[in-house]
Amino acid sequence: MIQIPFELPLFEPGSVWLTGAGPGEPGLLSVLALHGLQNADIVVHDALVPAELLQATQRNAEIIYAGKRGGIESSKQADISKRLIQLARENKRVLRLKGGDPYVFGRGGEEALALVEAQVPFRVIPGISAGVGGLAYAGIPITHRTTNSVVTFMTGHDAKGTTPSSVNWEAVAAGSTVLVLYMALRNLNEICNHLRKAGRSTAEPVALISNATLPNQRVLETTLGHASAVAIKEEIKSPLLVVIGEVVRLRESLNWLGLEKNPTD
Amino acid sequence: MIQIPFELPLFEPGSVWLTGAGPGEPGLLSVLALHGLQNADIVVHDALVPAELLQATQRNAEIIYAGKRGGIESSKQADISKRLIQLARENKRVLRLKGGDPYVFGRGGEEALALVEAQVPFRVIPGISAGVGGLAYAGIPITHRTTNSVVTFMTGHDAKGTTPSSVNWEAVAAGSTVLVLYMALRNLNEICNHLRKAGRSTAEPVALISNATLPNQRVLETTLGHASAVAIKEEIKSPLLVVIGEVVRLRESLNWLGLEKNPTD
Repeated sequence: MIQIPFELPLFEPGSVWLTGAGPGEPGLLSVLALHGLQNADIVVHDALVPAELLQATQRNAEIIYAGKRGGIESSKQADISKRLIQLARENKRVLRLKGGDPYVFGRGGEEALALVEAQVPFRVIPGISAGVGGLAYAGIPITHRTTNSVVTFMTGHDAKGTTPSSVNWEAVAAGSTVLVLYMALRNLNEICNHLRKAGRSTAEPVALISNATLPNQRVLETTLGHASAVAIKEEIKSPLLVVIGEVVRLRESLNWLGLEKNPTD
Repeated sequence: MIQIPFELPLFEPGSVWLTGAGPGEPGLLSVLALHGLQNADIVVHDALVPAELLQATQRNAEIIYAGKRGGIESSKQADISKRLIQLARENKRVLRLKGGDPYVFGRGGEEALALVEAQVPFRVIPGISAGVGGLAYAGIPITHRTTNSVVTFMTGHDAKGTTPSSVNWEAVAAGSTVLVLYMALRNLNEICNHLRKAGRSTAEPVALISNATLPNQRVLETTLGHASAVAIKEEIKSPLLVVIGEVVRLRESLNWLGLEKNPTD
């Protein structure tokens, strides 16, 4: 039990709370999202939502799995939006729970637009995105004053599963000192080749972070030239974050999760 | 009171928790950060931390203000790091509370490096960055599948308060469909000019978000050509987020905070 020193909004029946579950560690859920979970009649969740969080619901709450790793097809996305609308119209308190933040490569905007169109009231509860929180747990500051005043987030695949075609690789490579790629495992080789052709050094440090913030988190440090081969050789698994840039070198000092395990080392 | 369905780590005396307070709304604090607040002996906080959160501490906890809006000088930053080390060596549980996320333009990496050097054990508790959570409350999805697969975060000033000199404006303008600027009020005119000279349209939509997620949140919609004049005319105040890109247009539909106030409109 924990005392909450501030007021939290009422979860109105017939409304949808479009909620971010954070990067994985249950404690990184926001207080507002936990409040939503504890008051929801129905939780509609994705694959990347930690199981512990679903235990926070009321005993009679219904839990609906609506996730699919990799590219979600449009038809499936439309089905999820329809389901949310239907449940809200049945006067339920509907919590839509998505890994990370709903608006950071989470297709939350599409669901929100469908709710607006159907005149279903909703609120958005942001979450800690894996690209921010996952890096912190891997011991990597996403910005560092002497390293970068710019950081770019990209998705490694589009709805079809291929590398997004709209990316201007030359410009991204030249403009973004630090790059964080979401869902980039499948197209990692292609993405690294794009960046190398666009002028990034093959020796540039890269971190591959699998299952960020969870007990089975794995972090591999490599380079732009070797990242794809290392991912294959080490059989690294999704969900994967890829960080490219000098900030990766800070991990040698700032790997606090490692330090915590061996505080006397 | 709220039931926590998962375990939370012990806050060891003599350690520092480098913690993000989130964008401003108290409910957006993580459960782990709230747990840290409730167990801290000392909280060392910045200007952008909401006052309600400080009420979550133990009655006898000491609260130390270490904030300064605008560019924090290096000497002051060094003083903060020294203070954290000193307090930890007095065997206190030290919560360092920073607005947003400690590693997103928050100089958390510098404090963490100082702690490592002094062999003070620490953990990082990420927070919802204003660039993510603040946009959601302004009704703007930071990514949208039909609009952008790339989003870039930048700081609008360096330690001296001037526009960061290392930015390649041509590349950023060409590569980053959506740009989110932190602390950009002072240099807004210069930044908009850089982007226009680099080829971004003067008609491109821009949102100016002041006091994101708080009851006094203000959002002004404008264009790249008018943003600076609008900021001056409307006397918009820090802390300010600036969002540049087509996603700003989604606000017309997705302004849920407005919708919530008038749910029958």
